[in-house]
Amino acid sequence: MATLAITDGRVLLPDATVTRADVLIDQDAGEILEVGDDLSGAGDETLDAANALVTPGFVNGHCHVAMTLLRGYADDKTLDAWLQEDIWPAEAELTPEDVHAGAELGLLEMIKSGTTAFADMYFEVPEIADAVETAGLRARLGHGVVTVAADDEAAREDAQTSIDVARDLDGMADGRISTAFMPHSLTTVGEEYLDEFVPKAREAGVPVHYHANETADEVAPIVEEHGMRPLAYAAEKGMLESEDFVAHGVHVDESEISLLAEAGTSVIHCPASNMKLASGMAPVQRMLDAGVSVGLGTDGAASNNDLSLLDEARDAAMIGKLAAEDASAVSAESVSELLTHATADAIGIDTGRLEVGAPADLAVIDLEKPHLTPAHDLVSHLAYAVAAADVRHTICDGQVLMRDREVTTLDEDAVRERAHEHATALIDRAEA
Amino acid sequence: MATLAITDGRVLLPDATVTRADVLIDQDAGEILEVGDDLSGAGDETLDAANALVTPGFVNGHCHVAMTLLRGYADDKTLDAWLQEDIWPAEAELTPEDVHAGAELGLLEMIKSGTTAFADMYFEVPEIADAVETAGLRARLGHGVVTVAADDEAAREDAQTSIDVARDLDGMADGRISTAFMPHSLTTVGEEYLDEFVPKAREAGVPVHYHANETADEVAPIVEEHGMRPLAYAAEKGMLESEDFVAHGVHVDESEISLLAEAGTSVIHCPASNMKLASGMAPVQRMLDAGVSVGLGTDGAASNNDLSLLDEARDAAMIGKLAAEDASAVSAESVSELLTHATADAIGIDTGRLEVGAPADLAVIDLEKPHLTPAHDLVSHLAYAVAAADVRHTICDGQVLMRDREVTTLDEDAVRERAHEHATALIDRAEA
Ligand SMILES: [Zn+2]
Ligand SMILES: [Zn+2]
Repeated sequence: MATLAITDGRVLLPDATVTRADVLIDQDAGEILEVGDDLSGAGDETLDAANALVTPGFVNGHCHVAMTLLRGYADDKTLDAWLQEDIWPAEAELTPEDVHAGAELGLLEMIKSGTTAFADMYFEVPEIADAVETAGLRARLGHGVVTVAADDEAAREDAQTSIDVARDLDGMADGRISTAFMPHSLTTVGEEYLDEFVPKAREAGVPVHYHANETADEVAPIVEEHGMRPLAYAAEKGMLESEDFVAHGVHVDESEISLLAEAGTSVIHCPASNMKLASGMAPVQRMLDAGVSVGLGTDGAASNNDLSLLDEARDAAMIGKLAAEDASAVSAESVSELLTHATADAIGIDTGRLEVGAPADLAVIDLEKPHLTPAHDLVSHLAYAVAAADVRHTICDGQVLMRDREVTTLDEDAVRERAHEHATALIDRAEA
Repeated sequence: MATLAITDGRVLLPDATVTRADVLIDQDAGEILEVGDDLSGAGDETLDAANALVTPGFVNGHCHVAMTLLRGYADDKTLDAWLQEDIWPAEAELTPEDVHAGAELGLLEMIKSGTTAFADMYFEVPEIADAVETAGLRARLGHGVVTVAADDEAAREDAQTSIDVARDLDGMADGRISTAFMPHSLTTVGEEYLDEFVPKAREAGVPVHYHANETADEVAPIVEEHGMRPLAYAAEKGMLESEDFVAHGVHVDESEISLLAEAGTSVIHCPASNMKLASGMAPVQRMLDAGVSVGLGTDGAASNNDLSLLDEARDAAMIGKLAAEDASAVSAESVSELLTHATADAIGIDTGRLEVGAPADLAVIDLEKPHLTPAHDLVSHLAYAVAAADVRHTICDGQVLMRDREVTTLDEDAVRERAHEHATALIDRAEA
């Protein structure tokens, strides 16, 4: 058995407290063996965590990882104009190789900011899965279905692809990859396709993930067409099971909050995207108070514009207080949970807890920084002050993905260079 | 004449465009000599800006720099409870040595995040001025006056201290330090003291800086007592001159926006503080549209919790769109101005423009990062993706304050260690 010891650090426990402890990892099993002051062995390999905080690896509950290629391409536009004028035309030109290059860039960014697991909706999913396998993270992947602009044959093929991808890729990369059926949203997928394919997702035994209640504009047409709020409609379509998770949940009313809480369906809060696209403020504290399972996600890099979950954590605390008109809402403790096990639970990936027997997915954060001095409260620092560049080491499934800021599984310069080339060529084609 | 050349970079011009250019600096005069492709000399000293963006040094329009000692000490509380239960009791224990240690820590953090000028309201201002002189930044400093809990003698002494400090320190550090008279706010300083001391500020020839319209709770008492909105009251007290600047301006109505625009008084927007204390969303785009001079500030580290203006820039864009319910509001271009010359103009410090003859205050930002790849739009990156740790070099008044992340004017480890000790002892005293 190969072991890895993380020494001299302080550790963030699942109850949001911090204590002095070393961590011993079984690298073969990818599992935490011991947490404490007096490890039984030294570890075949050692990572220094002196003056550092050891946390569970961060979990990004909603992403479109290959959209890194479009980072900064079109900003300061409304969701509708942004999608129709810029993003969709560019995405129409995406090749499998583009998606692979964009995914690698996003995964590199995730590793460098301490993220070890994520959920992702996109196209050319086998390319993303391949990149995830190489990069060493965990992921729940799915093919996003959009039927509104398609004829029936193309729509059914698209939906079937999402089911096939979910079946075929589930369990890949030694189980690090899981999947979901991913209809894009309740307004961009026709009712008949939900009726036909959601049951197929249940047969395949995979969750359903989709965007819902993101903007005020998308609520009204559903109410008009179906005579009920979007999440009541989702429940009727069988898309509100306890393993399902929806992105955004900005414009949810009390009845929908109750539905979510009763069903056990999770909401992935994406504060940066909601702010940047002026979509609105999700009632995160109200959902937490009602017992809704809430997770945290970056959404794609084009509406963020980075994939660091640490930025998202700070955003969640900030906007959560504004939305609640209460400075005590979405506290640092809540945020530390959103960064880790709350989001892991929401997307159904077993990770996010630093405890014996748990998957060895960890981030080690360097505290020797001016902006992390003094150290009155490390949970506060995690929520409000830690930045991506403070992550010193990243570990997933017992493997060291980054050591002293050096990523081990991807060639950083080559990935950046490749992404740059693919992004430039993509925009040239899209604007031709 | 000693010269410094910044080579191979791209530069951010005052009109928010980016172009390829080298920069030649006269270090004796602290001035930009040349901007272009073909410098007349090589420079006695050279800074590499290959794959980097050269911007004006960032300008922080409102800070309490020594509050770094209280970073993370008390979070998730409303402004009132936070001040009364945590911050004021701790601040009552502050010694001059504490303020010096906290100021050095804040200045270190500013240099490491590319900030080269700031406005600051606090106590023990000569200590702060001393730290600024050593650290090498520019600052407009002032002593914050609070009279509400004081007897008349103490109140008058406090106000006189603010005038004296403004007179005595103005022009210090070869002119890098300027000053202002700084009554804390319109509710924490009694009317009689404003009547007596604002004219003294005018005699001294210094601007007036104060907090105003930060929370909804502070507007009502002014309306009740004085029969007018806070900024109308400020105008009546002679505190709305073109050189004056107010912090926050969250709860301003149309009449106050007009007053500000007509008077030329600047508003320093502090989005992180406004979100974290659930104060509300300032109508930044509306103020800009009305012709109000708007700047950007971090406020103190205890309500932020860091002093990187780059975080604040992203926050300003994000919350600005939410407040306007318009994704095109507070665009990346606006944000690039808030980071630099708009805030410099607002606080009356001559800096913030990368052009020949301007003060040589610059930041060099490393673009070779995953989260800054690809490079479709560097102004977008500055607003949405650049982080403090991406700043490679910081230059102020022609002097290199940081080279390759190594601060030259302060001993980083010693400053952090000292701040940690002072912060710990301070809290021990405050909680004793
Ligand atoms: Zn999304
Ligand atoms: Zn303030």
